[in-house]
Order: sequence, then structure tokens, then C-alpha cells
Amino acid sequence: MDQTDKNIRFMKAAIDEAAKAVPEGDVPVGAVLVVDGEILAAAHNRKESSNDPTAHAEVLALREGAMKLGRWRLSDAILYVTKEPCPMCAGAMVNARLGALVYGCADKKGGAAGSLFDIPSDGRLNHQVHIESGVLEDECRGLLKGFFFARRMAV
Amino acid sequence: MDQTDKNIRFMKAAIDEAAKAVPEGDVPVGAVLVVDGEILAAAHNRKESSNDPTAHAEVLALREGAMKLGRWRLSDAILYVTKEPCPMCAGAMVNARLGALVYGCADKKGGAAGSLFDIPSDGRLNHQVHIESGVLEDECRGLLKGFFFARRMAV
Repeated sequence: MDQTDKNIRFMKAAIDEAAKAVPEGDVPVGAVLVVDGEILAAAHNRKESSNDPTAHAEVLALREGAMKLGRWRLSDAILYVTKEPCPMCAGAMVNARLGALVYGCADKKGGAAGSLFDIPSDGRLNHQVHIESGVLEDECRGLLKGFFFARRMAV
Repeated sequence: MDQTDKNIRFMKAAIDEAAKAVPEGDVPVGAVLVVDGEILAAAHNRKESSNDPTAHAEVLALREGAMKLGRWRLSDAILYVTKEPCPMCAGAMVNARLGALVYGCADKKGGAAGSLFDIPSDGRLNHQVHIESGVLEDECRGLLKGFFFARRMAV
């Protein structure tokens, strides 16, 4: 399986994870943390359901992965996320010395990995995270648009 | 008690909290979350001791406070931190719709509330956090310098 196939396989897993947020009333964003070609941790946005302002998919996946490995350094890990991370999540990736970030769609209003900021690539910080973007971009964007459309209809 | 006295009182509490990180092998940064003039949550950096890349004092205090209040919106809260927050923590404050941030010393190498970035004040994001800085600045800086000096000596 080449890297493109791997990216698609893991982003599909992140999308499946994102879908779990919807019945819980949370914006559908999902993440999987991959180490040695296997999914070590998977999480979805749980900000509303857990009343935790930090419970974004990326932070939860990084925390779960670090707990399983018994170390906070995740330089051998790749994080797949359906949406471009916010400043908090992008900063968490730098703090974890994450190896690579692969995300689906950009977030022009709040994204911190290329849109408003580029925190994971910032050479002034003590670690840089390799970034790939646009993997299953249309599907990832559609997931968010569909959610917000349905929510507006329900009001 | 006027605001200056309050700032000093709560920053002292944050410094006391920071000191608890040292015997655990963590960089001494402390935070207290204040609501209605009382300390609702207090935390210190636990990145090393908990093997959690997200376990900075600020994130832990925000999470504890939100859990106690049963809501992620902390617009009525003030977070006192001994050091200027990193991008992750500054982003967490925006995500929590934090009312105000008061910090001690700047972090010229990694700070995200005025030094490298100014995430809490960024008008492009969906919330802005009021910021005060320099409260007990020298003591907060000394705490960090003393820690790193002692650690270098021990190697």
C-alpha cells in the first residue's frame, strides 16, 4: 500500500470517527493517531458532550496515544484529522513533537495550519510538524457543511 | 481590595501552584482560574509527570474549571498564569471564550499572547480575551530561571 492509499485509508477512519460526534450534538471533526502503520488512538470532537473547551478530536487523540505509549513525545506518530486544526490543536501537535499532520479540508475562518496561522511549520518554535492537506478534502468539507445546514434547519 | 491587589493575590496563588511542579520534574508554571472573586481551579504543569503533551497548567485549570461549572464557556472567568501561554494554551483560552488572561512573565521564545503570536487578541478569531501582563513578573521569571539553572547544574 503506497502513501496515497494509506492516507485515504486513515482519513476514512477519521471521517468515521467524526460522524460519531453528530448524535452527541458536536461539530463532526474526527482524528486518528497512527504509529507503525496502525491506528493507536481515535477520537471525535466532544466539546459540547463533555463540557470541556479543550475536548477537540486532535487533543483527545494525542492524549490517548500518549497515555497508551507512556510518553508525551510522539515524533513517530502521524495525526490524521478531517479539518485543519485550530490554534489550540496545532499548538498541541508542536508540544507533542508530532511527526506529521495530515488533514482533510482547510478552515479559512480559524485554521492554524496554513489559513490564519501556520503554527506546526513555524520555524521560531522548538519543533516543526510535517503537514499534508487536502486528503479526501471534499468529503471532509461536506461533513461539516451538512451538519451546519441540518442544524440551521432545525432551529 | 482593588484590582491590583487582587492581581497580586491570585498571581501569588499561581506561583505557589507552579512550585508544586518542581519535585515532579516539570517546568514550574502554575495557573489559577478565578470566578466571582474566588479560585475555582488551580493547576501546575504536569507534562512530564503525566506523560501528557497537553498537560500544561493553563489547559488543566481550564478543564477543571469547566468540569466544576458543567459548561465549557468561561466568559466570566479570569485565568492567572505565571508565564505567557504557548500557542496551545492561548488557543484553549479562545476556545473556552475566557473572559480575561493575566500573566506574569513573557516567553520570548514561544509565547503566544504578545511575543511570537497574539492569539487571544486576534480579531480574526471568534472570541478575544482581555490580556494583562507583567504581574509579579520578576518573581515569575525567577522561578523559571532558577529551575533551569538548577537542572543544568545537575547534569
